[in-house]
Amino acid sequence: MDTLETVRWSPSGDAVRIIDQRRLPAEYAEWDLRSVEEVCEAIRTLAVRGAPAIGICGGMGVVTALLDRVHDAPSVFGARLREVATSIRETRPTAVNLAWAVDRVVQAGLAVEGRNEEVLDAMRREATAILAEDRAMCESIGAHGLPLLPEGARVLTHCNAGALATGGIGTALAPVYHARRAGRHVSVYADETRPLLQGSRLTAWELSRAGVPVTVITDSMAASLMRQGLVDLCIVGADRIAANGDVANKIGTYGLAVLARHHGIPFYVAAPTSTIDAETPGGDAIVIEQRRRDEVSQGFGALTVPNDAEVFNPAFDVTPAELVTAIITDRGVFRARYDFSATGGGGGPPP
Amino acid sequence: MDTLETVRWSPSGDAVRIIDQRRLPAEYAEWDLRSVEEVCEAIRTLAVRGAPAIGICGGMGVVTALLDRVHDAPSVFGARLREVATSIRETRPTAVNLAWAVDRVVQAGLAVEGRNEEVLDAMRREATAILAEDRAMCESIGAHGLPLLPEGARVLTHCNAGALATGGIGTALAPVYHARRAGRHVSVYADETRPLLQGSRLTAWELSRAGVPVTVITDSMAASLMRQGLVDLCIVGADRIAANGDVANKIGTYGLAVLARHHGIPFYVAAPTSTIDAETPGGDAIVIEQRRRDEVSQGFGALTVPNDAEVFNPAFDVTPAELVTAIITDRGVFRARYDFSATGGGGGPPP
Repeated sequence: MDTLETVRWSPSGDAVRIIDQRRLPAEYAEWDLRSVEEVCEAIRTLAVRGAPAIGICGGMGVVTALLDRVHDAPSVFGARLREVATSIRETRPTAVNLAWAVDRVVQAGLAVEGRNEEVLDAMRREATAILAEDRAMCESIGAHGLPLLPEGARVLTHCNAGALATGGIGTALAPVYHARRAGRHVSVYADETRPLLQGSRLTAWELSRAGVPVTVITDSMAASLMRQGLVDLCIVGADRIAANGDVANKIGTYGLAVLARHHGIPFYVAAPTSTIDAETPGGDAIVIEQRRRDEVSQGFGALTVPNDAEVFNPAFDVTPAELVTAIITDRGVFRARYDFSATGGGGGPPP
Repeated sequence: MDTLETVRWSPSGDAVRIIDQRRLPAEYAEWDLRSVEEVCEAIRTLAVRGAPAIGICGGMGVVTALLDRVHDAPSVFGARLREVATSIRETRPTAVNLAWAVDRVVQAGLAVEGRNEEVLDAMRREATAILAEDRAMCESIGAHGLPLLPEGARVLTHCNAGALATGGIGTALAPVYHARRAGRHVSVYADETRPLLQGSRLTAWELSRAGVPVTVITDSMAASLMRQGLVDLCIVGADRIAANGDVANKIGTYGLAVLARHHGIPFYVAAPTSTIDAETPGGDAIVIEQRRRDEVSQGFGALTVPNDAEVFNPAFDVTPAELVTAIITDRGVFRARYDFSATGGGGGPPP
């Protein structure tokens, strides 16, 4: 099975080529992003999603959005660079990776004392490095997580923290892919993950494609599965991990962690160290993105909520560190009480 | 606000008139059921749903399905009566009320030594009595539950156990309607309740219609609301209550009960005593209906699960009695350890 390439350069290098995830599983389609408007639209509408993937896409998008400004005066070019970076950076507020990747690319450009072409080349190299590092990080997460998945392990996951969320084989799903490569028969229960169904549409699609047995459940069924002894462990991704180990991830993660604790089931978070935000002391400091009403009220075309009822639609929740059994990172498996200093300080925006 | 009439006789009495709940909230439509096929289809496709309402509909449907057999020989009529009753009774296995109501109507008919017309009249009176009793039971549940909802109470509910699930003002929502009548400002969070969205489509519709503030959330958001201190109590309905107090109800109820316990929030079940099945000792003995794949995989019209992924779709789960703070019935509020003998033995099929 060939590896999915969720975000990459187009062959000519003038676009960010993404898999348009809004159309899965009914249709596989790619979309070449060039302008800042296209990059922001793709991120905002979740054509590309998952904290690592939007970081990569945002970083690469800074480059492609500036390609037609290469002949501007350096000061104009520099101002435009900052505008583009700010627009992309602010498209989604919760995931730390987006700001982190955009800032890395911008810093690489600003460090160059030279022509616009040289600035762009430096930024392109940095964005390419972020993609390569992400692939390596996914593999490393998979390797570190592998011992947690014995033969026959039945894994429950939420949302999609797989290949479609990263530049590589995913975060939460990386240990699953490694177990599969190691010849272990593991299977996955995928929460469908309302409102946008990333679990049923994306996790089930990429796992089926890779030959991993997957069963889709509605989010409300997880507790019942656990009570029946059908779940051996949970693994989810993370959009931001605070310095104290609190985890912001897709809405529903917190409830799943409470259920896992009640049933004595290990609850793992898998994420690259770039997801750890040393500047956010705890979960209470994490900004939770509120999304549009219609994702809940008419998410799939039909009106499912009467017009005079209110709708609440937070994209994420915060799981306190004490409910997390361990965090599987590219630099090892960290168990509470978390001491991320061993990671070299983790990610977060550069100083 | 006029009261909803979810199930009633048509004006001429030759049909069961129901609100077709498959079309809400987009459209309000009624459907007159006459034949056994129509009655079974309405119950199976959830055009009418909710344990009390399908009981009423099933009981009334036995009558209308036999109207064109009134001139049959008594032995043929009697055989047909049993066939009709069996077909309707077996349409959905989990709710005790359906079998209970059908059996009550059949027994009332079999008790008559007379012409087919007299048998039908007796059955019609019994079905009408079940409807009237259900209305009274809802009012009584509301009255008993009222003290649990102080001014300003914020109630979380799952699925629809309201007027649309009964012949009256509902079970779980009856205390809410009583609080509203008492001038209290109460509000409701409605779990949308995947896969069939009875919470967002039906609970939100009937509460909005009645002027009760209601906010729809995806099922995965309940935990986050609880953690933020936005939920004062949970009230849900029940499809079957075992003799030990275990509760079968819409899938997702069990998880909600675990979450409520974790957050120290009272978790109430509201149900008529006919829902208590003295012949079922505990939750493990309750048959859980498994429903079709496509309710999950294309519930919104679009394909949301790839074809090669499995789907799990149980309609109900079982909440153990120890997670239920109290059961609000038409004969009082029962707190664990449950002693239903005070109810006179509750419902369940007659001996």
